[in-house]
Amino acid sequence: MTVETMPHWLDKRADLTPHEIAIEDSVGPLTFEQLQRYSKMMAKKLANVGVLEGDHVAIFSNNSADYPCALYALSYLGAVAVLINTRLSPKEIAYQLNDAEVSLLFTSSEMHDVSKRVIAKADKDIELRAIEALIIEKEKQVPLKEEINLNDLFTIVYTSGTTGSPKGVMHTYGNHWWSAVSSALNLGLNEKDKWLAALPLFHVGGLSILMKSVIYGMPVYLLDKFDVEQVHDAIMNKQVTSASVVAVMLERLMERLDGSHYPETFRCMLLGGGPAPKPLLEKAKAARIPVYQTYGMTETSSQIVTLSPQYALTKLGSAGKALFPAQLKIVNEGGSEQPAMCAGEILVKGPMVTGGYYQNSEANKQAFQQDWLATGDIGYLDEEGFLYVLDRRKDLIISGGENVYPAEVESVLLEMDGIKEVGVVGKEDDAWGQVPVAFVVKSEEAVTDDQIINHCHLHLAKFKVPKAVYFVDSLPRNASNKLLRTKLVDRLKNF
Amino acid sequence: MTVETMPHWLDKRADLTPHEIAIEDSVGPLTFEQLQRYSKMMAKKLANVGVLEGDHVAIFSNNSADYPCALYALSYLGAVAVLINTRLSPKEIAYQLNDAEVSLLFTSSEMHDVSKRVIAKADKDIELRAIEALIIEKEKQVPLKEEINLNDLFTIVYTSGTTGSPKGVMHTYGNHWWSAVSSALNLGLNEKDKWLAALPLFHVGGLSILMKSVIYGMPVYLLDKFDVEQVHDAIMNKQVTSASVVAVMLERLMERLDGSHYPETFRCMLLGGGPAPKPLLEKAKAARIPVYQTYGMTETSSQIVTLSPQYALTKLGSAGKALFPAQLKIVNEGGSEQPAMCAGEILVKGPMVTGGYYQNSEANKQAFQQDWLATGDIGYLDEEGFLYVLDRRKDLIISGGENVYPAEVESVLLEMDGIKEVGVVGKEDDAWGQVPVAFVVKSEEAVTDDQIINHCHLHLAKFKVPKAVYFVDSLPRNASNKLLRTKLVDRLKNF
Repeated sequence: MTVETMPHWLDKRADLTPHEIAIEDSVGPLTFEQLQRYSKMMAKKLANVGVLEGDHVAIFSNNSADYPCALYALSYLGAVAVLINTRLSPKEIAYQLNDAEVSLLFTSSEMHDVSKRVIAKADKDIELRAIEALIIEKEKQVPLKEEINLNDLFTIVYTSGTTGSPKGVMHTYGNHWWSAVSSALNLGLNEKDKWLAALPLFHVGGLSILMKSVIYGMPVYLLDKFDVEQVHDAIMNKQVTSASVVAVMLERLMERLDGSHYPETFRCMLLGGGPAPKPLLEKAKAARIPVYQTYGMTETSSQIVTLSPQYALTKLGSAGKALFPAQLKIVNEGGSEQPAMCAGEILVKGPMVTGGYYQNSEANKQAFQQDWLATGDIGYLDEEGFLYVLDRRKDLIISGGENVYPAEVESVLLEMDGIKEVGVVGKEDDAWGQVPVAFVVKSEEAVTDDQIINHCHLHLAKFKVPKAVYFVDSLPRNASNKLLRTKLVDRLKNF
Repeated sequence: MTVETMPHWLDKRADLTPHEIAIEDSVGPLTFEQLQRYSKMMAKKLANVGVLEGDHVAIFSNNSADYPCALYALSYLGAVAVLINTRLSPKEIAYQLNDAEVSLLFTSSEMHDVSKRVIAKADKDIELRAIEALIIEKEKQVPLKEEINLNDLFTIVYTSGTTGSPKGVMHTYGNHWWSAVSSALNLGLNEKDKWLAALPLFHVGGLSILMKSVIYGMPVYLLDKFDVEQVHDAIMNKQVTSASVVAVMLERLMERLDGSHYPETFRCMLLGGGPAPKPLLEKAKAARIPVYQTYGMTETSSQIVTLSPQYALTKLGSAGKALFPAQLKIVNEGGSEQPAMCAGEILVKGPMVTGGYYQNSEANKQAFQQDWLATGDIGYLDEEGFLYVLDRRKDLIISGGENVYPAEVESVLLEMDGIKEVGVVGKEDDAWGQVPVAFVVKSEEAVTDDQIINHCHLHLAKFKVPKAVYFVDSLPRNASNKLLRTKLVDRLKNF
């Protein structure tokens, strides 16, 4: 008998530990019972504005306690939550709403103006509702889900790809469940655990903290955004035991720590969002910060490979081993498994890995080989099976933990008059790890770097906009005319 | 996508934490890497004596480190382990071997003589091998399982029932997995955890500790059997943090503790095997023993309902709430759900619940209502949803944690000349909680209580043999001539 159902997570949690804290934010603490009550209320109000089982509803909000309420409200209705990155441009968001067949954009009031512009750009009629304004709606008495089917779709989160078109990663309840459970088997589970979320909840790294909260019965210390003072204070004084960060955040936190130490009870600094520089890891080790390096992506519902602190020095730079129910292998271009110490593409498999991209059979065909996901990332295993990631997905630029795909930026630039050819690569940056920069071959019309950057700002999220434009006579290409981005990276040394 | 496979648990564990201790017993410590090596060696030797994928192999042994080796050896071959209670009579064991279609009896040397008698009673040819003698076998180079399919059958454990015929409870890998994970979500998971197993490994309560060990990466402190001095010493001096016990064991441990206290690091006394007397729970609370009362059975792969220590006083006598992925409800005789405080039959549902009894469609039809298992136990939920178990399965006698079904004992007695009618019930007992006693209506032939007890010893495990025989003129029956065992229990007060 295959397991498919369990009680609705929030009902179960509110039944087991009703008075424990679910969310602690600037507004105050929210218990699991309150979270359940608010979520159910919101579900009935959403039902009143027409949300039905199976509907796709986009949540467009920065971090707040409303976020989990909205998420669970949709879940109680059997609707699917499409999580929108608030940093994207209206055009980018409209693309995702169209692609995910969203019927309602559920938005925080601060996003309301942007939302109107998004709606204007969308292909079809999309209802717009402000989360805060829902309070005036009546509650429609509809049956709420009492059980969760692990095979049901819960969230869709978009990720770009080498092809440039963002793809909707589908997460079932099961994907999130197994991610949370696998992490607990790795990190342990303590009744005093409190997890800090400064990552955006619309990213899978932030989202996974909400999932852990309800499954473990653990409070989330929720911040609007990463603020070094607030995070430092939370770890030093607010009994936070675990935090999810990207390298840039860790760097700033260590500056702030400035030679002192976190309390002994702080037990996990989960470091994701791309490979960390070795000097940073060495400094963190010296500061006795319990860093767990991880490797993961939207498609794996957050971490799938993790290095425990006891290996932080002997396996410095490694992302560790696949979590208990997960597997990884390295294959060469022919698809054969590579021996130890030989680089190749990283393939992963496990119950936290997405079943596929939403309505994108082409991408699914490319990415999946039976149950294995081809990540496009390059790495190798050492003799003891520890993973070393050499390169994130071909040409991927990671800027402050956000993914920037050169192909996506290039396709926006090629729409411009005056640009004949373009190549986008990442440039090392002290603050952000990497920033995108563009190499441009002009066409006959005149174009300036300011014009190019303005154009990008109209169409792209800020973090994707090239920080510099280099005009060149030609781009390096191979025999089949494929752009050689690695050669562009070499050229950066001259600028 | 339904999750079905994961890496073989022992391979994964040996990869993640090869040098951590898996088993600590009187022989010494065994690491996960060693456990893996020995299990694989044993698998290849078992292959050499003819064990094939899908074969049913009975393990007949008291507790030792060979037990998990044998279990995982079978698992590597894709064979099913039938776990035999060493306290059963040869006839009872032969019944199980026949019923489970066992092809090989894999036995510890101390059980070898009994095994020969068992084999003689079995219907068909069953191969007999001593675990210790397997060492001389060659290793056959066969492919060993690298992945586990959660839907595959792993173990069969027999349980008797109200009908008297033992039934083979099938556990998939998934049942054991979910049991271990659900327990961790309830009890937490600490890298310093060490679990004491003094329960027999052929019982699901002991078996579940082995499953936790490999899934959590946790050492098991394994004892041959429950010995109050050894258990006391392990908790006081051997860094044991958790232990599984039945009420009789806890009683003795508290006597031994005699007013002193266990170390702070001892964090979980998991109390199962039937309802615990309230005075015992009160004494345990006073002694600051962190007792987790549980309710579970072979069919639920061990605990499915658990009371946390923080409720030990306010909910004294309750078995607690269903574990996170599990559900329970109370129904009346018509099958409708009972309101709070109203007693009825306890039904449970969850991924740790067996899919059914081996080749026993009649029992399966009776026990399962869709995905709900009708336990036959009687209980109620209080206003806050805490379970109180009033009566274990109709007429079930629990003697020192072992289940004794009156119907089974009665059917053995009715085979005897001289017995016309018989009724078996449980009598309160200071040492064992309960012991079985028999009320007998003689037929015309003469029969003595010694003869009756001798007959039982030939056919039944010792713990099932009535400790007293009361000759009576008639048995209390209802209008449809059904034996009223509760009236016999009342009569016990006169003896």
